[in-house]
Amino acid sequence: MNILYDERIDGALPDVDKAALLNLLHQQVPDLDLLWREEELKPYECDGLSAYRTTPMLVALPRRLEQVQKLLEICHAQHVPVVARGAGTGLSGGALPLEKGVLLVMARFNNILHIDPAARTARVQPGVRNLAISQAAAPFGLYYAPDPSSQIACSIGGNVAENAGGVHCLKYGLTVHNLLKLEVLTVEGERLTLGSEALDSPGFDLLALFTGSEGLLGIITEVTVKLLPKPQVAKVLLASFDSVEKAGRAVADIIAAGIIPGGLEMMDNLAIRAAEDFIHAGYPVDAEAILLCELDGVEADVHDDCQRVREVMQQAGASEVRQARDEAERVRFWAGRKNAFPAIGRLSPDYYCMDGTIPRRELPGVLEGIARLGAEHGLRVANVFHAGDGNMHPLILFDANQPGELARAEALGGQILELCVKVGGSITGEHGVGREKINQMCAQFNSDELTLFHAVKAAFDPQGLLNPGKNIPTLHRCAEFGAMHIHAGQLPFPELERF
Amino acid sequence: MNILYDERIDGALPDVDKAALLNLLHQQVPDLDLLWREEELKPYECDGLSAYRTTPMLVALPRRLEQVQKLLEICHAQHVPVVARGAGTGLSGGALPLEKGVLLVMARFNNILHIDPAARTARVQPGVRNLAISQAAAPFGLYYAPDPSSQIACSIGGNVAENAGGVHCLKYGLTVHNLLKLEVLTVEGERLTLGSEALDSPGFDLLALFTGSEGLLGIITEVTVKLLPKPQVAKVLLASFDSVEKAGRAVADIIAAGIIPGGLEMMDNLAIRAAEDFIHAGYPVDAEAILLCELDGVEADVHDDCQRVREVMQQAGASEVRQARDEAERVRFWAGRKNAFPAIGRLSPDYYCMDGTIPRRELPGVLEGIARLGAEHGLRVANVFHAGDGNMHPLILFDANQPGELARAEALGGQILELCVKVGGSITGEHGVGREKINQMCAQFNSDELTLFHAVKAAFDPQGLLNPGKNIPTLHRCAEFGAMHIHAGQLPFPELERF
Repeated sequence: MNILYDERIDGALPDVDKAALLNLLHQQVPDLDLLWREEELKPYECDGLSAYRTTPMLVALPRRLEQVQKLLEICHAQHVPVVARGAGTGLSGGALPLEKGVLLVMARFNNILHIDPAARTARVQPGVRNLAISQAAAPFGLYYAPDPSSQIACSIGGNVAENAGGVHCLKYGLTVHNLLKLEVLTVEGERLTLGSEALDSPGFDLLALFTGSEGLLGIITEVTVKLLPKPQVAKVLLASFDSVEKAGRAVADIIAAGIIPGGLEMMDNLAIRAAEDFIHAGYPVDAEAILLCELDGVEADVHDDCQRVREVMQQAGASEVRQARDEAERVRFWAGRKNAFPAIGRLSPDYYCMDGTIPRRELPGVLEGIARLGAEHGLRVANVFHAGDGNMHPLILFDANQPGELARAEALGGQILELCVKVGGSITGEHGVGREKINQMCAQFNSDELTLFHAVKAAFDPQGLLNPGKNIPTLHRCAEFGAMHIHAGQLPFPELERF
Repeated sequence: MNILYDERIDGALPDVDKAALLNLLHQQVPDLDLLWREEELKPYECDGLSAYRTTPMLVALPRRLEQVQKLLEICHAQHVPVVARGAGTGLSGGALPLEKGVLLVMARFNNILHIDPAARTARVQPGVRNLAISQAAAPFGLYYAPDPSSQIACSIGGNVAENAGGVHCLKYGLTVHNLLKLEVLTVEGERLTLGSEALDSPGFDLLALFTGSEGLLGIITEVTVKLLPKPQVAKVLLASFDSVEKAGRAVADIIAAGIIPGGLEMMDNLAIRAAEDFIHAGYPVDAEAILLCELDGVEADVHDDCQRVREVMQQAGASEVRQARDEAERVRFWAGRKNAFPAIGRLSPDYYCMDGTIPRRELPGVLEGIARLGAEHGLRVANVFHAGDGNMHPLILFDANQPGELARAEALGGQILELCVKVGGSITGEHGVGREKINQMCAQFNSDELTLFHAVKAAFDPQGLLNPGKNIPTLHRCAEFGAMHIHAGQLPFPELERF
């Protein structure tokens, strides 16, 4: 994938004497592993959004809480910015390092501290992988519900920082709905407990505030999550439609019928063909859209719901509804969906994955709008997404080697997100704002709202040392960016926007 | 009920020229209804926690958003504190007025603005009663899940401010889990939108931060809630136990078995006898404890779950498990529980209702601890509570006319909450902190955490004009109060604590 932007905020940060900082850290935290040579730093120059790359000044790899505390104290005293990173799988550049900052890698905090089957909770360190929690809970018949598609690699600390979702969050909620308690360190290295093991916690809900705050408010050092009992049965229906509008209507009708599927995913024809060529899932390649609807729970319940969903789909105009005959076919149906992104990657030298949400009722209109915008820009757009919760992932296909295509892709992406905001949705569903969407935040929020965000940030980190340049744009940046939407993707002062 | 405290924070507030303020409001917001005569103010001197009473300086009864904006602008410019109030049913004194402040009554904002059955949402004004939302949604087969026992009277704005719970929040969550969007006014009268109709919203989660903030961060002017489809069937099991410990174990076992009941309530012998005498619900008066377990959902599912819960209860040592034979008996079983507080009120001249949460596994130990503490203080304690989510409501019986009993009841209450905190729970489950629990917040949080709360408060309200003296104690107050827990309920400087 090509580099979409090369802008840096480092220009605005004060210079740091790297050698002096290294010296100080060696002296005061002698057992802390540090990387500082160019070749060692290379692997940390980006996260899952490889379009943005910056070489960090230093990488710290602590193993113990005291090391993190000491590191934060020193960086705070020296006014050095700190960017926290988990497994580095994030898709919005939230863990993108700074040339003048320390990258604090929490990956070595990877112990599962306690599984309490009676309370149905797991207390884990932030570097524990998402899937590892479910694996550790499996002997008790329990699992951790949020399942981002990177769940084999991504870590729970990053999931909390980005408020990660997944295929099953329609029924089981986002990360924030599955958390009980966080242990965190402030920018000054002070320990705080947010939330509690009880249902509610008095005072302001700092647990929810911290979740999805993308490393701007503090460093997560321990996470207590809720575990759920594994559903007895899971069945999948695959429905084919001759238009995306009909499929969109079926989604709205299923939800309106009072059914909450475990997952409800939509793919359009371009995505269906790509996935079928790649995975041979058994998808109908002539359909304009398919829906995959998973129903889980106890046997009798699932049986009834399958029947009702089938009827709703047929009434909405499905040309065919098939239920996976056995577990092997169910897994194959999902494999097509889960590999849709790499499958589409085979169709085009480059693609740009968007992540926006819209109210479900707007699905048919927005899909139509995306097709129209794509045609205007002369670019193909594939749609694969969490239809049930209105979380869209339009994939814009382009070739960065063709003059102008990159710029057209960026402009189209911006317009698609703008369309999401216009119908009452938002510029990110589950990938976070990070560095990627920082400009679109100016479209999402007005200056009063952004000012309040900055005031909240300042309550935790008055000097702005934690992950600067991510999540919340400065008003200055928005004032400049304001023109972009008006001028359809043309930056008025591109040289200014680089900093 | 007698007055437990008579402390006031008004002493610390600057004096306000009431006549000048009235004049200003009359001039600048001529159509705003204001109350200022002593006899008009009387009905507003307390909320549902009648032990605390203060006559407000002024009561404002706006009907339109612009009136509220103008009022806030004027109060902000004049440095006059503002306390928001909904229906005034809160149990922790969150809407207790100030002698030197304006009481802003939002009760006239009582329109249901839009019900969207496809999106399953309701957009309402803050003065709409909790139950009225479910009534308006009923024609679509939908309802609003959180059901505080005051739901016939309490308003949704107050529910949001206190993050209200209810019998069904074990399965369906607290208010915060059932909200999508808030429209609010800042202390300066600026309009903000928090959250969105989409699943997630970028930026910091100010929607969750606002929920349960008890009027300290802004004024709620519109609420969009999620609606749920009504369960097809609801069944109730009544189980009797010869010890509260066994009943406590049954609660933990039901949850550990992967069943999530619609409601799971416990009553001890004192509460059982009181309720039976009053309501004739058919409770076993010789049982040391009963559990009421409601299972809801689709027919087949509920049938299976009833069977499993029955088995778990028997294995935990239930002497009898009865299923309500019909809807009339189901309603009677719940009537006993819902009237338990007034029933206990018939046993004793006064009672003091506590509200704390604990991890479920601690139930048997904490119940034993409460009994021991009660015996030490020579006071009876009845237990009626949301066992499933560990939300306890010990009711301390006392007679304020007996010298020393009030002080003993207060001391016992403090110790019970301290016990909740010690086992990992919290000092409030669903009633909020308000004025009542302001001192216990010092036991719940350390000074770093409280400092952070104040910084967050200052981000919204730097002058501290919104509901001062509630929810978050000053560090100064905690420094004084710190001694109380050490000296078993004896205030070191009672005269200081009055202000």
